[in-house]
Amino acid sequence: MGEPLRRIVLNMQHEDIMNLEQLDTPAAIVDIARMQRNIDAMQARMNALGVKFRPHVKTTKCVDVVRAQIAAGAQGITVSTLKEAEEFFAAGITDILYAVGIAPAKLPRAMALKRRGCDLKIIADNAAAASAIVEFCKAANDTFEVWLEVDTDGHRSGIAPDDEALLTIGRILREGGVEVGGVMTHAGSSYELSDPEALTALAEQERAGCVRAAERLRAAGIACRTVSIGSTPTAFAAKHLEGVDEVRAGAYVFFDLVMANVGVCDSGDIALSVLTSVIGHQAEKGWVIIDAGWMAMSRDRGTSKQTRDYGYGLACALDGTPLAGCALIGANQEHGILAVERENATSIDELAKRFPVGMKLRILPNHACATGAQYPEYHALDRDGSTVVWRRFHGW
Amino acid sequence: MGEPLRRIVLNMQHEDIMNLEQLDTPAAIVDIARMQRNIDAMQARMNALGVKFRPHVKTTKCVDVVRAQIAAGAQGITVSTLKEAEEFFAAGITDILYAVGIAPAKLPRAMALKRRGCDLKIIADNAAAASAIVEFCKAANDTFEVWLEVDTDGHRSGIAPDDEALLTIGRILREGGVEVGGVMTHAGSSYELSDPEALTALAEQERAGCVRAAERLRAAGIACRTVSIGSTPTAFAAKHLEGVDEVRAGAYVFFDLVMANVGVCDSGDIALSVLTSVIGHQAEKGWVIIDAGWMAMSRDRGTSKQTRDYGYGLACALDGTPLAGCALIGANQEHGILAVERENATSIDELAKRFPVGMKLRILPNHACATGAQYPEYHALDRDGSTVVWRRFHGW
Repeated sequence: MGEPLRRIVLNMQHEDIMNLEQLDTPAAIVDIARMQRNIDAMQARMNALGVKFRPHVKTTKCVDVVRAQIAAGAQGITVSTLKEAEEFFAAGITDILYAVGIAPAKLPRAMALKRRGCDLKIIADNAAAASAIVEFCKAANDTFEVWLEVDTDGHRSGIAPDDEALLTIGRILREGGVEVGGVMTHAGSSYELSDPEALTALAEQERAGCVRAAERLRAAGIACRTVSIGSTPTAFAAKHLEGVDEVRAGAYVFFDLVMANVGVCDSGDIALSVLTSVIGHQAEKGWVIIDAGWMAMSRDRGTSKQTRDYGYGLACALDGTPLAGCALIGANQEHGILAVERENATSIDELAKRFPVGMKLRILPNHACATGAQYPEYHALDRDGSTVVWRRFHGW
Repeated sequence: MGEPLRRIVLNMQHEDIMNLEQLDTPAAIVDIARMQRNIDAMQARMNALGVKFRPHVKTTKCVDVVRAQIAAGAQGITVSTLKEAEEFFAAGITDILYAVGIAPAKLPRAMALKRRGCDLKIIADNAAAASAIVEFCKAANDTFEVWLEVDTDGHRSGIAPDDEALLTIGRILREGGVEVGGVMTHAGSSYELSDPEALTALAEQERAGCVRAAERLRAAGIACRTVSIGSTPTAFAAKHLEGVDEVRAGAYVFFDLVMANVGVCDSGDIALSVLTSVIGHQAEKGWVIIDAGWMAMSRDRGTSKQTRDYGYGLACALDGTPLAGCALIGANQEHGILAVERENATSIDELAKRFPVGMKLRILPNHACATGAQYPEYHALDRDGSTVVWRRFHGW
């Protein structure tokens, strides 16, 4: 029995899987050293800019990651669902901004969390939601801290900084006895840019628009303590953050190929990868078949409209080095098709020799938030090559 | 306190959520009547064609759905991961085909399942995997039933029916004491078609190629009892299935917009939908913001290259009726952008009147397999409007 087989048979008895060679595939691998470097770099930047940092935890949905962010200096978290708020509150985090406009039917669930001691802030960008919050608070004989969502780049939701609705909504809340605790914006259109000057301009537009909204509210007698802005690209592009209290960003913690195309990281900064095994070949086509399909990578094709299209991800050797001349051109549910350029594999034998069945590879994802969501857990890879399981949660 | 608010407050005390109006959003809804109709239609067709039916359960990963398929006459199941095999074996299903080429490192886990009594069939399409199976079985002093994967349309993996490798691999297994129990193929390129004649031609190509592979193996003295073929489109397009023992299909159970574009269902047959709430508007753009983003719909844009591009899904009223003049044009993680044509909403007031904050909608998905995977559970909707939770599992 050869050495690889001996290891496989031994593994039947010992399930303490420890290194990448021993992990079952596909698996989501977090490079702890890269992640920590990303966390430290963002926190240092925020400290230098003189603002608090409130990471968006929707990227990872993982308590182990968020603890590292808080240990580095983050103050509070941003969530995209009440499930995230509940899970992170259960893990001991109390200062939570739920940064998606509240649907009135979610108010009871939000209130239940607040009553358990969570300092939960909710957001609104329209009069109907503000009225529902007021009415709900009266009925419940309790209150919420509400932040108003400001639209600084037109990409999604929010109220334009100079829109009369901003004051109308602020007044509905104040007159209903509900505190307007702040304004928040997210310049998500930054994901579509790659030019440093355009990014800096958008960062300034995001800052100035949100500060302007706060000033208008304050001039109308609505306190609005906090100005909260951010996206990973604008957080890196901002020259100054005058008038801003805190920045939010999520993707920076792992980065991904979309962010590499935007220009805020290199592929060597990407902390999330998918571990996969070669399961076959279609040698005459130059294809290596791997067990990472779209279920393992997600269907996110965010790089398809950027300067470099990575297909379903960037294939790397087990040590994380990108493989030249390879492209993950296709994905079925549990099959990935890795196309190898002809000059790198001119014959069936050469392809199978370079990528033998059972060989493990790592694939960097287009979009870390989407790829992570496909997994119940990460395997966090330490410098010594050992891994430990970090649970992540799923659903709403 | 108005009636909607009264219901919300009442729900704080009573968590026995029962109908669509009361469910939290986003949620994955299965229309039981449509699902049962789809199951019955496919089973009737397979019975008429004189073949067994082995549904692919990767679409749903849900024991409740699979029990309905088996109750209708399905014989055994197809899985895409060992996790599916383990979960469905735990639910009492023993006849399981694991229809992704085995990575040698997965053999111990597969063997553990077999030793617990599962009639697990594994597949291979290359000599390296066949040799690893043989060596593993010798070391483990046990055996597997192996089926050979045949490539009948060039879309992914498998051995071409006339490739010499077919017999080479068959002989490696037989001479190593491992039974070649069958041949299997999947004409997945059928998803790219929409012309009925082309579909029928591909179905015949799939049938004939797989039967040819079996005949070659049998002529070489390799028993190869079972000929297994199938995809949802070819299962509907086949005129006869001479020489075939069983058909596999997955998507048919829920159908989706990709299948509607292929032409094998109508939108009224689609049994999976995403329940969502309106959370805001950008009225001057004609946008309704909903709480179903790509996390709720998946990033699958499978209809983008088909005759009709549905964006991130087809918006319907709560009763399932498609909404004219609306398109889900954008999706962030927890935000969807539903664009409403101007003639349907000429003013801010009209848009908010037609789609008030808190209104619930249902979105039909591009790809049921991808959308379902975003959820820990389905809410199965009965004819009386009540729902029950059907768990689905996640990960590998």
